[in-house]
This record gives sequence, C-alpha cells and structure tokens, in this order.
Amino acid sequence: MKLATLPNGQPDGQLVVLSSDTRRCRAVPHIATTLQQALERWTDVEAALRAAAAALDTDEAAGLPFDAARALAPLPRAWQWLDGSAFESHGELMSRVFNLAPNEYGDRPLMYQGLSHRFLSGTADVPLPSTEDGIDFEGEFGIITDAVPMGTTPAEAAAHIRLLVLINDWSLRRIAPIEMKTGFGWVQAKPACAMAPIAVTPDELGPAWHDSRVQLRLQVDWNGQRFGAAHGGAMGFGFDQLLAHAAYSRDLVPGTVLGSGTVSNPNYRVVGSSCIAERRAIELLDHGESRTPYMRFGDRVAMQAIDEDGKAGPFGRIDQKVVPAHPR
Amino acid sequence: MKLATLPNGQPDGQLVVLSSDTRRCRAVPHIATTLQQALERWTDVEAALRAAAAALDTDEAAGLPFDAARALAPLPRAWQWLDGSAFESHGELMSRVFNLAPNEYGDRPLMYQGLSHRFLSGTADVPLPSTEDGIDFEGEFGIITDAVPMGTTPAEAAAHIRLLVLINDWSLRRIAPIEMKTGFGWVQAKPACAMAPIAVTPDELGPAWHDSRVQLRLQVDWNGQRFGAAHGGAMGFGFDQLLAHAAYSRDLVPGTVLGSGTVSNPNYRVVGSSCIAERRAIELLDHGESRTPYMRFGDRVAMQAIDEDGKAGPFGRIDQKVVPAHPR
Repeated sequence: MKLATLPNGQPDGQLVVLSSDTRRCRAVPHIATTLQQALERWTDVEAALRAAAAALDTDEAAGLPFDAARALAPLPRAWQWLDGSAFESHGELMSRVFNLAPNEYGDRPLMYQGLSHRFLSGTADVPLPSTEDGIDFEGEFGIITDAVPMGTTPAEAAAHIRLLVLINDWSLRRIAPIEMKTGFGWVQAKPACAMAPIAVTPDELGPAWHDSRVQLRLQVDWNGQRFGAAHGGAMGFGFDQLLAHAAYSRDLVPGTVLGSGTVSNPNYRVVGSSCIAERRAIELLDHGESRTPYMRFGDRVAMQAIDEDGKAGPFGRIDQKVVPAHPR
Repeated sequence: MKLATLPNGQPDGQLVVLSSDTRRCRAVPHIATTLQQALERWTDVEAALRAAAAALDTDEAAGLPFDAARALAPLPRAWQWLDGSAFESHGELMSRVFNLAPNEYGDRPLMYQGLSHRFLSGTADVPLPSTEDGIDFEGEFGIITDAVPMGTTPAEAAAHIRLLVLINDWSLRRIAPIEMKTGFGWVQAKPACAMAPIAVTPDELGPAWHDSRVQLRLQVDWNGQRFGAAHGGAMGFGFDQLLAHAAYSRDLVPGTVLGSGTVSNPNYRVVGSSCIAERRAIELLDHGESRTPYMRFGDRVAMQAIDEDGKAGPFGRIDQKVVPAHPR
C-alpha cells in the first residue's frame, strides 16, 4: 500500500491512498483523516486502507490525479524523530574528517533525537541562515512505527515497522562537530528534514525489504550531477535493532519516525556518497585536503531510491533548493 | 495567570484557568480546549484567559475545586523539548565525575533535544527498566513558548516566553556518559520528564522573574529528606539566550518547552544539589569516592519552588515514585 498527504490548510494535511501506479489518489476520511490518526489505530484501519487503495486499481475512473509535486511529507509533523547512524563506513569516515574519537561502544547503535514538528515536503525550498555553516544534504531511509512499548525486543520490533520512507536530513557541517564535542548532540546543526512524497508498507518492496533493511540504492544528484547511489542494505544494525534500542527506557509514540543515518557503503569510491561531508572525508584521505565545497544558496539536491536495474523505487523524488532564511 | 490541565481521556487533556489561590479552576472551551491550542493563538486568547481567571477571584462561588494531585502536566505532550545545561557549577562537576572533556565552547549554551511526546504529571509513578542504570532525578525550571521564528535574537526571544514551569528531568546515569561519548546526545539515558501541575505567566513571579531567570530556589526532598535548595537565578545563560540559540536554524513551534538544566549553585556544599549525580561528584571530590547510591524502586522524590523566606512558589509540587517498568 502507498500513502501520501495532500495540503488542506491543516498542519497534518489530508491522508490519501494511492493506486499501485501512483497516478491516482483518494481521501479516506471515513477511515482516517490524517496519517497520524491512521498510525494511532493501525491494526484497526489497515485492512480498510488497503481495500480503498485496491479499489483504485479495480476502477480506473475512481479517485483523482495524484500530483507528487503538490504532496506534503507523508507525515508533515511527528511527535518523535530519532535518527540512527547505522552505516559503519560513514561513521568511520566522519570520525576521521572531524577528528572525533572512534565509537568505543560499537555494540550499541548511534542515535539522536531531532526536530520533528515539521518535515518539509520533498519539493520544499530549504531556508537556512548562512552558507558559512557548511550546508549539506544527507540521504537516508526511514521507518514509521505504530505504538512500541518500552522494552520491545528486536524480534518484536519488526512488526511495529508500519511504513517506509525516504528522508533528506539537512545538516550544517561547520556546527555539527562543535555540538558533538559537547556530548549533548545536535540542535543548531540539524534543521528540519524533508521526506519524499510517498510512504509505503514494507510489502510494497517485495524482496527489497529484507533483514529489516531497505535493499535499494539511494540515488543522489547535486545540481543535476550524479553524486552517489549507495545501497541501503549495508546497515550495521537493522531497523528492528534500532527500534529496540530506542524503546529501552521509553514507550515510542505512534508516528515515531526512525532514520537509518546517511546511506553509505564501504566501496564509496565506486558508488559515491549520500552527503557532501562524506565525499570531503574521502578527498581528505586521498588528496590530503577536502576539495568539494558545501552547498550554496540556489543549489538543488535530488534523491530517489532505485533498484539494481536502475528502476525507480516507490517513494517518489526529493528535489529541493537551498534558499537564504533571511534574504537581504 | 495560573494554568493547569485536567484529565479528560484525551492525550492533551482539558485546559483550566485557576484562581489566584489555586483552590478553584474553570475550563474555558470557548477560548481554548487545550494549552497547546492556547499557545498556538496566544496573543489572541491571552486577554480572555486572564479575564476568566480573574472572574474566579471576583466570584468565590465560581468554578470547581482544583485538585493538583489529579492534574496532568500543564502540557501533557509537546512537539519539542529542548533542554539546556545553563548552570555552570553543575557542568563542571559532571565533567569531573564522568571524566568528560571540559566544554571547549563556553560561549555557546549546551542543549539537547529530548522525548516530548509525553510529560508525566507531577504525581505519576515513573516506570523504568532497571536500578542498574543509575536512576536519578533532575530538578529544573522551564519555559513554554509561542511561535518563535528562525533567527530570533535574545532581545526578541524574551517576549516569546509565555509560561514558566517546574520540571523533573528523569535520567539514567550509567547510560548517560556512554551516550555522551558518541557525541549524539541522549536517547536511552533520558526517559520521559515530569512537570509540576501549574504553569504560570512570568508576571506571576513578580521580581522573582528577572533577567530571563527564575529567581527562586528549587527545593528537593528524596524519601522525605531534604536534598537541596539551589537558586534558579545562577544560570550562565538566561532563557532568552537559550531560546535564541535554539532558534538559530529552525522555527520553534508553539508549545516548545525549554529547560534550564539541573539547578545548581557554586556553593553546592551549603545549598545541596538538584540531582544525585551532582552529590556523587562532590563526594568524589571530598572523599575520593561517591557514597550516595542512585534511586531504588519505591523511592520517592519531591520538588517545589520556594522563595528566600521558604514560602512555596506557584508551580505546585512534584512528588513521584520510581517503579519497575517490567515487574516480575
């Protein structure tokens, strides 16, 4: 099942179910008005949502045209956004370039809590204060949960993964290491993230949802140039393990969004990267200096999932432009 | 003006205004059903809320008895909880006892984002997984904002401080330093916080709201024994500065809760502490070892604000018991 959210003047927008080809959509207010509502009663509403989506496939005249460029983030705001850093090749590169101590606790996932009161749409401009801050994108896969009780095990956690999404985790790289050194994690370095327009149930990925990992590549283009296409299957911890880690001492609220961290593969020189900071780290290793600058105002970044044949995955596209928050 | 939230079966509860003596309350559904709603339209509703509260003082027969022990947290859930660590004497002690590097960036406030989808009431039991984790309380003052635009300056920020609250920031001390060393901040080490029952507008404090700091003591009792009464005025950064720091690269959503961090004073040997970890740090300095154990299941902690004459402040009391999350 494929879900999206359309603007209706309300902060949570209007939930719609999509046809399999994502060309048509239908609001389902008799089932749930918003995706948050659906997640709060998921086991009660899932069958009805699936039936409404299937009806769009049966009757080609049903529903309305779906314009992904008009969609909000599938979950335009969430009560909780927890972001992991589960790709080990990324972590190792970042530690080197930022001169951070290596993670002493490799048996524990890395995770922080970030801004969740707004997820930008996949096509929203990204207002940021200054290009001096090292503006960077970060391509990630993410999951959205129903209610996950405190103490849930990894084996139990998998069943709480209700939806998969594609996320651009905007980052300010010149502030990030300063905030890391405090031990408190990031506030200024992590502005609002964006989500690609379509959230899908795990079954939509078929064999590309395996081992609680998204087995697709995340293709990233920066100003129209291919930047990377790293594979999502390389997570050191699966989403099931990340969820259980998060739920150790808290109940997770329905609509919790949990991210994989920047998608990264050990053969980064071949597949490229999902953020500029990682490329700069590779340049530092290879050439003794980082050569690729961070983003300028007016720059665009595009992201989509693709399979091994280059066929687009089901999340739709992120395509965003960075703009000054305080134009002069 | 004094505000509280009563249970009504909904996650955000029922907003009530209180009489000056906090003995009576009144729901104001014609103005706002929940505190979150009021904060989203604060400039439109503040006068009406104040009038409704004043009417309780004029007519002693108006309203219903207010039972603080029945109240929820004034804001039972929030879109954003940002917690500072603005008391320098606390930071210095923690760095010593946890063997952390001193904060190299003393001109920047310390701040992390924490769990905000549930604030426990001031009397709620606190379910936690294990006493092995070093269960600790942390007494703090906090503010609640209306909408704060990205780029707000400290001078502008003061006007966005709409309500003041008293917070118990529950912490797991054996996990905290491990999560700090990752640089990502805390997830497992910071379960849900609690709030004392009454939120007040800054004018309720009179001269005890000065310099964007709460000029009251935070009195802490552990199992009926006085533990500390440190003064809230000793913040190295005021709430105005903390707010501006938080708003550097994000808009702050109405209902953002921002904490001072553990209230602590340089004369901690005289006034005591607002958390066990700080006392253990002092013992380590004084005796070469930490002697005070962390909390056991069944332990209680009580907190209230007091003035220099020992008179109770307007927030009401926190009085909570720690219980096992997974009873055997």
